[in-house]
Amino acid sequence: MKAGRALAALLQRGWAAAPHPSQQQPGALRQLQRGLSGGPFAGRAGGAAAAAPWLAAVAAGLAGGVGLQLYSSTDPAQCRAADKPAASGKGAKEFDKEEVAKHRTKETGIWVTYKDGVYDVTKFVEQHPGGAARLMLAAGGAIDPFWAMYQQHNNDQVKGMLEEYRIGRLKGGAAAPVADPYANEPARLPALIVRSQKPMNSETPKELLVGSLITPNELFYVRNHLPVPHVDAATYRLRVEGEGVRTMELSLEELQTRFRRHSVTATLQCTGNRRNDFNLTQRPVKGLEWDGGSISTAVWSGVRLRDVLLAAGLEDDNPDVAHIQFEGLDTDMASQCYGASVEVDKAMDPQGDVLLAFEMKGAPLPADHGYPVRVVVPGVAGCRSVKWLGKIVASDQESASFWQRKDYKAFSPSVDWHNVDWESAPAIQNMPVTSHICEPLSGAAIDDDEVTVKGYAWSGGGQGIIRVDVSADGGATWHTAELNKVPQKRGRGWAWALWEATVPLPKGAKGAVQLVAKATDESYNTQPEQAAPIWNLRGVNCNSWHRVSVNVQ
Amino acid sequence: MKAGRALAALLQRGWAAAPHPSQQQPGALRQLQRGLSGGPFAGRAGGAAAAAPWLAAVAAGLAGGVGLQLYSSTDPAQCRAADKPAASGKGAKEFDKEEVAKHRTKETGIWVTYKDGVYDVTKFVEQHPGGAARLMLAAGGAIDPFWAMYQQHNNDQVKGMLEEYRIGRLKGGAAAPVADPYANEPARLPALIVRSQKPMNSETPKELLVGSLITPNELFYVRNHLPVPHVDAATYRLRVEGEGVRTMELSLEELQTRFRRHSVTATLQCTGNRRNDFNLTQRPVKGLEWDGGSISTAVWSGVRLRDVLLAAGLEDDNPDVAHIQFEGLDTDMASQCYGASVEVDKAMDPQGDVLLAFEMKGAPLPADHGYPVRVVVPGVAGCRSVKWLGKIVASDQESASFWQRKDYKAFSPSVDWHNVDWESAPAIQNMPVTSHICEPLSGAAIDDDEVTVKGYAWSGGGQGIIRVDVSADGGATWHTAELNKVPQKRGRGWAWALWEATVPLPKGAKGAVQLVAKATDESYNTQPEQAAPIWNLRGVNCNSWHRVSVNVQ
Repeated sequence: MKAGRALAALLQRGWAAAPHPSQQQPGALRQLQRGLSGGPFAGRAGGAAAAAPWLAAVAAGLAGGVGLQLYSSTDPAQCRAADKPAASGKGAKEFDKEEVAKHRTKETGIWVTYKDGVYDVTKFVEQHPGGAARLMLAAGGAIDPFWAMYQQHNNDQVKGMLEEYRIGRLKGGAAAPVADPYANEPARLPALIVRSQKPMNSETPKELLVGSLITPNELFYVRNHLPVPHVDAATYRLRVEGEGVRTMELSLEELQTRFRRHSVTATLQCTGNRRNDFNLTQRPVKGLEWDGGSISTAVWSGVRLRDVLLAAGLEDDNPDVAHIQFEGLDTDMASQCYGASVEVDKAMDPQGDVLLAFEMKGAPLPADHGYPVRVVVPGVAGCRSVKWLGKIVASDQESASFWQRKDYKAFSPSVDWHNVDWESAPAIQNMPVTSHICEPLSGAAIDDDEVTVKGYAWSGGGQGIIRVDVSADGGATWHTAELNKVPQKRGRGWAWALWEATVPLPKGAKGAVQLVAKATDESYNTQPEQAAPIWNLRGVNCNSWHRVSVNVQ
Repeated sequence: MKAGRALAALLQRGWAAAPHPSQQQPGALRQLQRGLSGGPFAGRAGGAAAAAPWLAAVAAGLAGGVGLQLYSSTDPAQCRAADKPAASGKGAKEFDKEEVAKHRTKETGIWVTYKDGVYDVTKFVEQHPGGAARLMLAAGGAIDPFWAMYQQHNNDQVKGMLEEYRIGRLKGGAAAPVADPYANEPARLPALIVRSQKPMNSETPKELLVGSLITPNELFYVRNHLPVPHVDAATYRLRVEGEGVRTMELSLEELQTRFRRHSVTATLQCTGNRRNDFNLTQRPVKGLEWDGGSISTAVWSGVRLRDVLLAAGLEDDNPDVAHIQFEGLDTDMASQCYGASVEVDKAMDPQGDVLLAFEMKGAPLPADHGYPVRVVVPGVAGCRSVKWLGKIVASDQESASFWQRKDYKAFSPSVDWHNVDWESAPAIQNMPVTSHICEPLSGAAIDDDEVTVKGYAWSGGGQGIIRVDVSADGGATWHTAELNKVPQKRGRGWAWALWEATVPLPKGAKGAVQLVAKATDESYNTQPEQAAPIWNLRGVNCNSWHRVSVNVQ
């Protein structure tokens, strides 16, 4: 038990310890500047495999930084077991692959191999931070390809933990090493702040966020769940299928020429944006340690999802269709893809502006942002805007993917990993109103009697920002910021507002002064004051007042 | 100046002092039970007068409880002047009507008469709580009909204040007394809690709110801005006009037979609901002192506004039309009507469910709720659901009515009556997520170690309620309530949720314990904790955590 808990804690730490963005490949910037329209894409078109999608999707879930469900404590005492050497003498016995393969159930015992080691993980399965079901995918075989995909396992401490369960050696030695599925990732700018290298998750520096209403493509935050697929535009086909539609396959050219082109300026935001503010409460949360930079804004161009669905014969108000599912071409080692869905009412709404986008700021989509085609669901959590879109499915059901059913949801502060009922909350679609102070940075020295504060504000569901108020005295007095916004119609306010306010500091203030920002959207929803009352186990939808402490000289 | 400020304060107090609901007419209940379909309606069909609508609408604004703009203090010292007797000797001089009528500008002086008194109010005009423009409507003539309409003037203290400005008597004595425009109000149930008698504004007792998902018609909260018009269904005509439409007049029968019938379960809420919670802050607000009962839910039946506009020839995305304006048949003494508008995107949205309703829970609309036809704009502040609908106007402009332009808006806490710029905030349409504890009532004695808490929760914009959390320890721990909701699609959650939670009281608690409720809607917007940071001069959109103190035995 102890070992299991320690492994969980280690996985968490491994996840949190983000590599620094030093692995730039030569010519990376040049490749980006070419707009990613050429060269490096191997032909890997076509949809994801259809068999057992749920199970594999659950496995793939680990890549989403959700592999840490079972433990809520970060008590370092839990990590002690990792410092023990592997139990001696256990490694003597030899097993062949066939023998290992017989151990796939609790009754027979659950065995796995890693390199040339054989391990009985029966007692660990239920404690696997990513869930028993995911570990069971590897039962009776090698975990090497899984660890190659979910690289938060790859550190000495986790490997040391595994040794606790060693029962012998694999006859004939280890299988050939698994190729790194992340070997062909696109180049990225060093300016991005990397929260996870494999898969790539990196945020835009906040000083750059407030630099322009439209985020430069190369600086748009990156949220990948799996390796970036290399898609050949020439052989690319988008498949449309399901209830109430005629199955249809569209080439990129057909998509671009058969339908009317539309452009939409929309902000995308990760549900985990500002997760770090939950870590300032007494209850730290799991997951990528996003600060405030997993949000960006682009001008997306493409065709309306509605128009494509109409062309496939879908009728408004078809009672058999409740959801439109999307499958990405990004897949795990079992060829299972990233997936998500939105309500059909959003997909078909002429005012919903859901795009199948192939351009970002007039250029073909960069590889990290879904080349050649992605969904853009304005007003909705970024995770539903599926990249590298391979398939659209009209259905009476939500996407069966892990990310739809068991990840991007929020619960009451009273729900923790031990009592969560994933069915009890709806999948996050619209996100709540939020704001973020981007300047000054925390700890900045202020040698003046006033301070200029800049940031962004956004709300989901097309509810444009109507006001941002800033306080330097804890909310006793407020100063309304100037807003800088793209003009958008009421109810279709998909893009953020940038804002700026010059705020007098409290008279005689010296030392730490907290700046506070809160936004109001056109539904007059506002941000809650504190993070603790909206704490949730997945650390999503953090939208409490944003607070930055500066140092008044 | 002092007199002006005192009058303002008095008007406020006069407004706040609601008569008790004791004026029931004989047979009132019987009349309600007849469904208001017969007898008492005099023929008064047809649209409102077209001349100078803005000016008169501003005047009519006073009826909305908005007559108190200029003063933010309730300092009783301001009222001292009211106790002074009228200045002696001023009343000696006599003026005829023609002479009074010459005094309508600042240059000539601004005179008015009340009964047989003549008053020079030149110095008061700019301090008139309802705005100078409204008082100017009476310049050169009698204010008696205005005071008959806006009966918050009718108390001895306000009348005493007026005497400060007396300059003489009207030659020939007072004109004939003005008939009470509220003489023919419909009967109401005594259970309604009256906040203003003329016009009628009354809320539903909170114990009854949680009694059923659909509020009984007779207990639906009443928010009138003017006297209830008596409309003859036989001669009723609904006029449609404006940009991009063919002018059309529809009888009630045509409306009911030419278009497909739709029913929508929708909650309506006054923007001022829970205003009293702002009065618990250090900054009391003006306006009807709504507690939590100016909200109710009905099943509305009628035809879609979209269908009627399509029949009039309005096309989707007509660039000349941005707003759909509504004019009521309720009018002031200048025959100017109550008015409001919504964005055309909402009006024309097939998913917006905007109705022209003629039934409430299967019965013809009661007189207080818009007989024979009203607008129902689901998800939007009740003030846009215009009752006794006379006219629909397609326009590139919002309704010019006072209530659209200068009333139902919310500002930063830093904006007060002295610095408000009405143009700087959008008219309230969608309202923010809110909740209210209806049981136990404040001060209730609890002789147990737990308490069952009941209430309602609602959010605007069709964002259904997904969760209500209740705390008995100030938000340290939360208990998720059971929800009771009408099933509605995501994005079309127009109806409230009723909820119930049994919450353990803090161990050893004795005396006052505060219960707290907060709701979360499907955009995961939540309520802010405190009222002070969302304080606004009109006291609207109060949606902070609802708090009730009980007395633990």
